[in-house]
Amino acid sequence: MRYDQIFSDAISRLHDEGRYRVFVDILRDRGAYPGARCFDAAGEARPITVWCSNDYLGMGQHPEVLEAMEAAIADVGAGSGGTRNISGNTHYHIELERELADLHGKESALLFTSGYVSNDATLATLGKLLPGCVIFSDELNHASMIAGIRNAGCERKIFRHNDLAHLEALLAETDPARPKLIAFESVYSMDGDVAQIAAICDLADRYQALTYLDEVHAVGMYGPRGGGISERDGVAHRISVIEGTLAKAFGVMGGYIAADRAIVDCIRSYAPGFIFTTSLSPVLAAGALASVRHLKASTDEREGQQAAARRLKSLFRAAGLPVLPSDTHIVPLLVGDPIQAKALSDHLLIEHGVYVQPINFPTVPRGTERLRFTPGPLHGEDEMKALTAALAAWYFPYRMPIAA
Amino acid sequence: MRYDQIFSDAISRLHDEGRYRVFVDILRDRGAYPGARCFDAAGEARPITVWCSNDYLGMGQHPEVLEAMEAAIADVGAGSGGTRNISGNTHYHIELERELADLHGKESALLFTSGYVSNDATLATLGKLLPGCVIFSDELNHASMIAGIRNAGCERKIFRHNDLAHLEALLAETDPARPKLIAFESVYSMDGDVAQIAAICDLADRYQALTYLDEVHAVGMYGPRGGGISERDGVAHRISVIEGTLAKAFGVMGGYIAADRAIVDCIRSYAPGFIFTTSLSPVLAAGALASVRHLKASTDEREGQQAAARRLKSLFRAAGLPVLPSDTHIVPLLVGDPIQAKALSDHLLIEHGVYVQPINFPTVPRGTERLRFTPGPLHGEDEMKALTAALAAWYFPYRMPIAA
Ligand SMILES: Cc1ncc(COP(=O)(O)O)c(C=O)c1O
Ligand SMILES: Cc1ncc(COP(=O)(O)O)c(C=O)c1O
Repeated sequence: MRYDQIFSDAISRLHDEGRYRVFVDILRDRGAYPGARCFDAAGEARPITVWCSNDYLGMGQHPEVLEAMEAAIADVGAGSGGTRNISGNTHYHIELERELADLHGKESALLFTSGYVSNDATLATLGKLLPGCVIFSDELNHASMIAGIRNAGCERKIFRHNDLAHLEALLAETDPARPKLIAFESVYSMDGDVAQIAAICDLADRYQALTYLDEVHAVGMYGPRGGGISERDGVAHRISVIEGTLAKAFGVMGGYIAADRAIVDCIRSYAPGFIFTTSLSPVLAAGALASVRHLKASTDEREGQQAAARRLKSLFRAAGLPVLPSDTHIVPLLVGDPIQAKALSDHLLIEHGVYVQPINFPTVPRGTERLRFTPGPLHGEDEMKALTAALAAWYFPYRMPIAA
Repeated sequence: MRYDQIFSDAISRLHDEGRYRVFVDILRDRGAYPGARCFDAAGEARPITVWCSNDYLGMGQHPEVLEAMEAAIADVGAGSGGTRNISGNTHYHIELERELADLHGKESALLFTSGYVSNDATLATLGKLLPGCVIFSDELNHASMIAGIRNAGCERKIFRHNDLAHLEALLAETDPARPKLIAFESVYSMDGDVAQIAAICDLADRYQALTYLDEVHAVGMYGPRGGGISERDGVAHRISVIEGTLAKAFGVMGGYIAADRAIVDCIRSYAPGFIFTTSLSPVLAAGALASVRHLKASTDEREGQQAAARRLKSLFRAAGLPVLPSDTHIVPLLVGDPIQAKALSDHLLIEHGVYVQPINFPTVPRGTERLRFTPGPLHGEDEMKALTAALAAWYFPYRMPIAA
C-alpha cells in the first residue's frame, strides 16, 4: 500500500492549482492594533498593518476584555478541566449564557468551543431529533453549517443564494406533514451581502418551518446592542435558533446558540459535539462576557467600523478598483485567479507592509478569487489612502499614480 | 407541526430514564486546587473538593502556565482574530506545534480547537483521502472518534474492545488492496484500561494498515516526558497519527495530532474542521506551550498522580468498595443504576463537600453506571480517607464505621 504516495499526490494537486496555503506568521501588538509584527522564514520581524482580521472591532485588544481575562486567570486558573457535565461548568459559563440569551431576546443560550462546532453540533442534532425532517439550506452557507446538515443525515434541499422564490418552490413541493428547517446566514462573509430575514420568516410561517440563522459575521456589529441583523431588522423573535461566535467581533473564541428553553435543553442533552468535549476555558468565557457587555452598551465601535467600510469602499471605487458589491463592513476586491491573488497579497505584504490574505477556492468559487478587506474603527485615513494607492499601482501599472 | 411537543418529549425521555443532566455550578480556587466553591440555586457558595476533574495533574493552576497566559495577553491580546490561514496564525501556534511534534517524536503536529475536533476532523479527512478505505474501530472508542469515522463516509468495522483476535479476523477478511486504518485509544477513560499498542502495530504491519491512536487520557501523564503510553512503551514511531488534548493533563484547552509531515499537511489542507474556524486563542496556545514544556522536564506531577491513584484504589479495596479494575490513574466505582449513581453523587456533595459526577449512559453502557474518581498529586491522604469513609457509610449503612 503506497500511503505516502496518496498523501503526497493530494498535496501536489494543491500546488498544481496554485492553492497550496502557506500561513503567514504574525503577532499582533497589544494596544497598537491593527499594527502587528510579521516574521519571515529567518525569524526576522517587520511591522505590518492587518487588513483581513475578523476581530472586526478590535475587541481582542480592548482593555475591559483583557482585564476580565486576567481576573479569571487570577481567580480560577487556565482550563475548566472537564466537560460541562463533569466538573467543567463554571459561573462564567452560566453568566455568559445568560448574557447571550438576553442579547438575542431568547429564553436560553448554549456555549460551544467554537462557532464551527455550534453549527455542526446543533444542525446535526436538530435534524436527528425531528423525525423525517427536511433541511432547506442556502447554497452559500458556511462549511460548518454544511457539515452539520450532512451529519443530520436527513433530506436536504439547497436553495439558490438568497433566492426566496426558489426557497418557496422547494418548501411548497415538500410534504406539509414533514418537519422543516430553513438554515441561512445573515451576513455572508465573503461577499458581504445580507439575507432578507423577515421574508424568510414569512415563508417559514406559511410552510410551518423552523428557522436557523448564522449571525457569525453580524453579532456585535449590527443592531442597537450588537444583536446582529436580526436585532437591527426587529425580527430576532421570529427566528427559532440564532447562532453566533465569540471569536470575531467579540474578539475572543467560542461559539453559541440562543433559542427557546426546550430547544437549547435538547441540544445540551443530545449533541455529542457539546457533551463530549472539555468546556470553554473560563478565561475565554470571562473575556467574552466583558466583550458582549461592552458592545451592548457602546455604539462607538460599530459606528467607527461602518464609517471605515464606507470610506474604504469609496476610495477603492474612486480609484477604479474592482470592488465587489457589498452591503456591509466587508470589502471584497476581485482578482479572479488564485495565482494572481496570491501574488498581489505577497506584493502588498513585502512592499507595503499590508497584510491581506488571498481568498481562493474552496472558500470562494473558482474564478472569483479575491482579496477581502475588513476595515475597522482602528484603521486610519492615511492607511486607507496608502492602501488604495498601492492597489491602484498594481491594477493599473501604466496609469499615473494617484496622490496617497 | 408540533415542534414544541417533539422537543419536550425528547427532554421527558431523559427525565424518565433518570439521566437528565443538571450541571453543578463551580469555581475553582486558584492555588487551592482540588479545592473549589460550589454554588447552589440561591447563589450561595460552599467549599468542596473536586474528585472528578480531568485536569489530572493540576496544571490548570500551575504558576508557569498562568504566567505564560498572562504574558500572552499582555503581548498580543485575547483572540487570534482569524482562521489559521486568514490572519490567525501566530508564533505561539507555530512554537506549540513544534513542541508537540517533538513530544511524540514526529515530523509535524497540527492544532485544533479541541481534542473532539481533532478526532472528528482528522479521521473524517483521512477516510476521504484514502480511496476505498476501511476503518477498524475499537467498540469503546470515544464519541469524537465515532463522529469522525462516520463523517469519513467509508466502510467501518468495529472490533470488540481490546480484542486483537477479533481485530485480526476483520483485517484478514478485508481485501488486501484496500487502504486500512486502525483507530483506537491508549487509555480508555471510563474504565482506565490500556490498549496493547505494540501488538496492534504488529497487526498493522502484517496487514499494511495505518494506525490512529487517541492519547487524550495519557499525554502529560505517561512516558518519561509525558508523551503518553506510546512513549512509555517505546512504540510512538510505529503509530501513524497520535492525537491528544491540551485540556486534560496539560490543563488548558485545545487538541492536536502529531504525524509525518505529509499526513499533517494533508489534514491542514483538506479538513474543513481545521480550515473553517478561528484558530485557538494565542493565550491558550501560550499556556499549553508552558504546560507541555514543564511536563517534559518534570516527573513530580506524574509520580504524585500514580501514587495517589494507587493509594485511593487500595483504600477503596480495603473498605470493600466495588472499585472496577483499572490499570491507570482512573478509579471507577460501580453503582450500576443511573438514579442511585445520581443520589450518591448528590449525597457526597451535600453531606461531605465531595464533588464527583455520576457517569451514566450514553457515556458508559447502561447497568455500569458509576462514579469516576481522578485522584491527582494534590489530593491529600486525609481527603482520601474521609472520602473512603463517606463511601463506605453509603454502601454499607449497617456496618460499623471505619476510622476516617
Ligand atoms: C458564517 C460562519 N459561520 C461560522 C463560522 C465559524 O465560527 P468560529 O470561527 O467561531 O468557529 C465562520 C468562520 O469561521 C463563518 O464564517
Ligand atoms: C478519549 C477522548 N478523546 C477525545 C476527547 C475530547 O477532547 P477535548 O476535551 O479536548 O475535546 C475526550 C474527552 O473529552 C476523550 O475522552
